Amino acid sequence: MSYATYFQEHREHHLNELKEWLSIPSISAISEHKPDMLRAAEWLAETLKKAGLEHVEIHPTAGHPIVTADYLHAPGKPTVLVYGHYDVQPVDPLHLWETPPFEPTIRGDKLFARGATDDKGQIFLHIKAVEAILKQEGTLPVNVKFCIEGEEEISSANLPAFLESNKDMLSADAVLISDTALIEKGKPAICTGLRGLCSLEFTIHTANTDLHSGSFGGGVPNALHSIVEILNSLHDKQGRVLVDGFYEGVLPLSDEMRNEFVKQAFDEKKLQQSLALESLHGEEGYSFVERVGARPTLEINGLYGGFQGEGSKTVIPKEASAKITCRLVANQDPAYVLDQIIKHLEANVPTGATIDIKPGEKARAFNIDPSAELLQKAADAFKTVYGTRALFTKDGGSIPIVEAFSRLIAPTVVLMGFGLPDENLHAPNEHFNLENFDKGLLTIVEYLNQI
Amino acid sequence: MSYATYFQEHREHHLNELKEWLSIPSISAISEHKPDMLRAAEWLAETLKKAGLEHVEIHPTAGHPIVTADYLHAPGKPTVLVYGHYDVQPVDPLHLWETPPFEPTIRGDKLFARGATDDKGQIFLHIKAVEAILKQEGTLPVNVKFCIEGEEEISSANLPAFLESNKDMLSADAVLISDTALIEKGKPAICTGLRGLCSLEFTIHTANTDLHSGSFGGGVPNALHSIVEILNSLHDKQGRVLVDGFYEGVLPLSDEMRNEFVKQAFDEKKLQQSLALESLHGEEGYSFVERVGARPTLEINGLYGGFQGEGSKTVIPKEASAKITCRLVANQDPAYVLDQIIKHLEANVPTGATIDIKPGEKARAFNIDPSAELLQKAADAFKTVYGTRALFTKDGGSIPIVEAFSRLIAPTVVLMGFGLPDENLHAPNEHFNLENFDKGLLTIVEYLNQI
Repeated sequence: MSYATYFQEHREHHLNELKEWLSIPSISAISEHKPDMLRAAEWLAETLKKAGLEHVEIHPTAGHPIVTADYLHAPGKPTVLVYGHYDVQPVDPLHLWETPPFEPTIRGDKLFARGATDDKGQIFLHIKAVEAILKQEGTLPVNVKFCIEGEEEISSANLPAFLESNKDMLSADAVLISDTALIEKGKPAICTGLRGLCSLEFTIHTANTDLHSGSFGGGVPNALHSIVEILNSLHDKQGRVLVDGFYEGVLPLSDEMRNEFVKQAFDEKKLQQSLALESLHGEEGYSFVERVGARPTLEINGLYGGFQGEGSKTVIPKEASAKITCRLVANQDPAYVLDQIIKHLEANVPTGATIDIKPGEKARAFNIDPSAELLQKAADAFKTVYGTRALFTKDGGSIPIVEAFSRLIAPTVVLMGFGLPDENLHAPNEHFNLENFDKGLLTIVEYLNQI
Repeated sequence: MSYATYFQEHREHHLNELKEWLSIPSISAISEHKPDMLRAAEWLAETLKKAGLEHVEIHPTAGHPIVTADYLHAPGKPTVLVYGHYDVQPVDPLHLWETPPFEPTIRGDKLFARGATDDKGQIFLHIKAVEAILKQEGTLPVNVKFCIEGEEEISSANLPAFLESNKDMLSADAVLISDTALIEKGKPAICTGLRGLCSLEFTIHTANTDLHSGSFGGGVPNALHSIVEILNSLHDKQGRVLVDGFYEGVLPLSDEMRNEFVKQAFDEKKLQQSLALESLHGEEGYSFVERVGARPTLEINGLYGGFQGEGSKTVIPKEASAKITCRLVANQDPAYVLDQIIKHLEANVPTGATIDIKPGEKARAFNIDPSAELLQKAADAFKTVYGTRALFTKDGGSIPIVEAFSRLIAPTVVLMGFGLPDENLHAPNEHFNLENFDKGLLTIVEYLNQI
């Protein structure tokens, strides 16, 4: 029986199974859902077993458990580690959901539920693809491992240590992750880059009390003037970052990379209109997808000081604060960048002010060369099923755990996503397009058979 | 009987009368005190009559009434118009008052009550000084008029129109106001300058929604970057304002004025220590008292946009706002200055941003040449009573009504204050030092007798 026929015959049963899993409210961020987290992990372990996987184990952690399994009966063939997560985002505001988040509902060709696309729905495809091959062929064409965590939505606090201490058990030639999206309907993508991150906040102090501008204005420093001056020193007018060493480790865009970006045929005009932007903005010489995908950025995310109420108040504020995050690319070292920003701020404190800096998070960027064979074959698998070869894209966001997998398990991380960008991840009415549910199953089977 | 003996004999009675007035909670800002405002005005009218003044009248306005009176029996002699106000500031936070604000209490040599120094206590001195001369001499050496309002603490909304339409009734050679302070104990001052004011607020818009820095960072404008850039264009690093035409009408400091400032012997080191300032700050070539007294300033009073909560948020804010006020001096035209700032902002809107500007208040600076005879004689009167001649100072604050008096009634406005800078005006535990109550009575009598 062809796999298309197989999945067609089992479609209703598969969707009902997935609905069962989706109806467990496995919200990792909310402690009262701890029993639900365990139920979701147990359901997963049971389903892996039923699929024919071996060594299924639930590993307790300081937080929520990690589930592993494997099927290692293809000596001399590559080993693929499938990663995903069974935890989901909180569901507020509940009243905006058309159907309850944990009562999975199919409307049209979409399955609505929290976790439908992020990430229960996508990880479920891998389990069912493996099950299908085992049922049809009795064995798998490659060695397969699963590692599915319950803390992705809360920064994967315990996973890196788990990877470190279970390197042998988890060793693989490639890590396969379905937690990203197609570019748009019918236009598959393999993400070959994610930006890193670093953050800090700081406060400028000028006096021990707010002062009256009548009695002091013009004669004492104003914390808002100081913070404006120091923040303005961070960029030139085109948005290029002026911090010494900020661009260290950033790779110049090769013609090949440029070409991949061009192939996306991203519609800048449409973006500008939909966000009501006067203009796009950023470093000269780069398109929007290049700026977001392959260039680092330093953004002020918050700024505040002085009077914020209605009307005016003649106050000279004693302090002002700002929050900053950077998105990093290629070989930028987040610790070094953070250090350089701190040095820059300290060197640019205006006369009359002092600064108090609080460093925050640090995460490296992830990048993979698309010419790797296991990536090229993934693009081919998409071509077979979708009729269109997957494009190699760079995503501007950050998934720190991807970098950890590439560093600790296998440099080849294949980000083979089956979501769509408008499926309301982290928002009310999250859903999964069933077209990609069906094609996803076939693409995974095709991929495992080809490598 | 000498006036010193007269006031000594009547001291207790005078203080009891003042306490009676201070116990009426004439808070102009709070509408439930409207009956108290009327009671305070009636008490004042009655007291003016008992003092021997004529044509005592309570004029209703759209807000609180204005009380006028006169005694015009010195043909050929100058006419002095005494201005003051019987309304007081609100009293919150009440729990910080050591004795209730409307139960006047003498502790040590201070009279504690809301309005004790601002301004019932000070205007009371003028009434009792006139009463004393009338009782001792049967007439006054000059012509005296009173104009006492009930809306000074709420911007004198109805007074300028009242001055306009009663120019004849209120015409005078000088306006005498006691609503300011000595430099410090034993160091009297006549204020010869008050700064003007103009204000505006604006919002910078860059998009129709906040954006995620992962998906958009580096490729779209950030409202906080835009507002930082535009605000930074307003000053150079020394605090000099870079708006075209901002300094138009500002008079250079003459040697004479510089000399008056030097005489104040202001202790900059002490100020710096008490406010924990890293350094004083402002235009080069000016001392602190010169910067605040004779130079204009543009201050950012509030600035906000983006995420202000705990931790970090990778948001690119769609908008950011700032509030600005200027203190103006000499012949600066507030409308022109406001216009120039608006033009500057509009011309400096960064690429990708739009601006929405809301102009606010406008008030002219007040300035008088200290060589005017009626000012010199006031300084002499202080010398006679205090043993120290009053210095001519410039105050950095704004009392818009002073400029209105000098424009509509008489250019010569004599700001002869008997308060002290630390008497908790507008704060809990407002008080009036009785040393200046006693010396104030004598100084006013001396002044009226000398002119």
